[in-house]
Amino acid sequence: MKLCRFGAPGAEMPALVDRDGRLRDLSGVRPDIGPRELSPEGLAALAAIDPATLPLVEGEPRLGVPFAGMSKFICIGLNYSDHAAEAGMAVPSEPIIFLKAPSALSGPDDPIIQPPHSTRLDWEVELGVVIGTTARYVDEDDALAYVAGYCVVNDVSERAFQMQSSQWDKGKGCDTFGPVGPFLVTKDEVPDPQNLDMRLDVNGRRMQSGNTRTMIFGVREIVAYCSRYMTLLPGDIIATGTPPGVGMGMKPEPVWLRPGDVVELEIAGLGRQRQEITAHR
Amino acid sequence: MKLCRFGAPGAEMPALVDRDGRLRDLSGVRPDIGPRELSPEGLAALAAIDPATLPLVEGEPRLGVPFAGMSKFICIGLNYSDHAAEAGMAVPSEPIIFLKAPSALSGPDDPIIQPPHSTRLDWEVELGVVIGTTARYVDEDDALAYVAGYCVVNDVSERAFQMQSSQWDKGKGCDTFGPVGPFLVTKDEVPDPQNLDMRLDVNGRRMQSGNTRTMIFGVREIVAYCSRYMTLLPGDIIATGTPPGVGMGMKPEPVWLRPGDVVELEIAGLGRQRQEITAHR
Repeated sequence: MKLCRFGAPGAEMPALVDRDGRLRDLSGVRPDIGPRELSPEGLAALAAIDPATLPLVEGEPRLGVPFAGMSKFICIGLNYSDHAAEAGMAVPSEPIIFLKAPSALSGPDDPIIQPPHSTRLDWEVELGVVIGTTARYVDEDDALAYVAGYCVVNDVSERAFQMQSSQWDKGKGCDTFGPVGPFLVTKDEVPDPQNLDMRLDVNGRRMQSGNTRTMIFGVREIVAYCSRYMTLLPGDIIATGTPPGVGMGMKPEPVWLRPGDVVELEIAGLGRQRQEITAHR
Repeated sequence: MKLCRFGAPGAEMPALVDRDGRLRDLSGVRPDIGPRELSPEGLAALAAIDPATLPLVEGEPRLGVPFAGMSKFICIGLNYSDHAAEAGMAVPSEPIIFLKAPSALSGPDDPIIQPPHSTRLDWEVELGVVIGTTARYVDEDDALAYVAGYCVVNDVSERAFQMQSSQWDKGKGCDTFGPVGPFLVTKDEVPDPQNLDMRLDVNGRRMQSGNTRTMIFGVREIVAYCSRYMTLLPGDIIATGTPPGVGMGMKPEPVWLRPGDVVELEIAGLGRQRQEITAHR
């Protein structure tokens, strides 16, 4: 099942994608796609709805974040060994956890706003893991039972802000730095989250090209690990790190995003994002 | 005005403190103390209520976090020069921003649960600044206009978790690591947030003793600074750093909290917290 939310920012309505790829309006049967709908029972009830009974969504509306009610936007740093190398960092012995401000969330095709004084705006295509069931101290073997599904995340980063102090959060949490979507794809449609091709283009040029199989810490391990340090709640998301090819790692010189640039990213089976960089006004 | 919330975890009801220090039940006139009530208009409407018209709260109920609807728990690291010295860190040239998981929130007198494998559990009394009005790129001179009020925060930290990687969030966001309250004290009752005595005792022994006047970056500067990196929303909180005297800095050996220890902390005019350390079960 592919779930999404459409409409103006802050006024999105829930929808699902039918077998022909058309959006079907869920707003007559669900108030939203939130923590309740992401539970195993909530997803089962959604799956029992015949999409043909739902109204078609007209036109090509804006898409928002495909679910509501996120309380934590957790990120895993340096989780692909090649990316750690390009960033000039050691391969971590345990997952590196940091947090992105939820106010950074934006729709998959919304513009990325370059903040004032930003000079090193960068991209990171990442597999997002969406929690469906409250998880505390869960075992790696059971970890996927707590997952509702997956989505594409662009972990937009301002490297000068990120590296100005020892703590990265400041360069990760600016408004619009968290495009999520277009879809929440339920886990039954993602039989192996460790074998998903991913790519990111800037202005049509391929910059990142990878596969989730080269993660240092896999999805099961990450969910179990995070659940030992903070209770994971339905609607929380974990962005699982990025493969090589970020702007910071380009040779001979880093490449930074500028207003007018277009970023396109995709993970196999999870959909595509497209963002235009715009200057802050 | 002093606002608080009382009752069982997850089922708290709003209250205010009358001139005699008694709790008055607001639940008949407000559903909760949330972002709407924290706005200037919301606070003015609360202030217009005659407390004598509200029912007295019976007994001595548990207190929760004094407001609901927090989306970001922002912390400022090393914001007292003496604390930076005891932590063996350089005095920062700009505020160091990191984030605490909102799932760490707990009431001011709730137990602090020591997580499994925790060996270096520590305390930090801090002035919490609660946002009342959405703040983006605000000027330092106007910054206090965006503040609803102040509260006591214990920025509980597990130093081994915190220092295991470069990123501190993992050691700051465990469940119960964010006692907030007992009161949200509106800013009209805090004429100078840069002149508040603060103290923290462990098992009756004074460990921290300071005053907000020795902050490196003051409240105005911190609110303005944070608003340049992420939009501050009503109900967001900024914990502004801790004065010297944390367990990590004790001589000749660090002092770590253990089950059975009792932490008591207070900021002048903002109330007291008391937590007992308990082992995870």
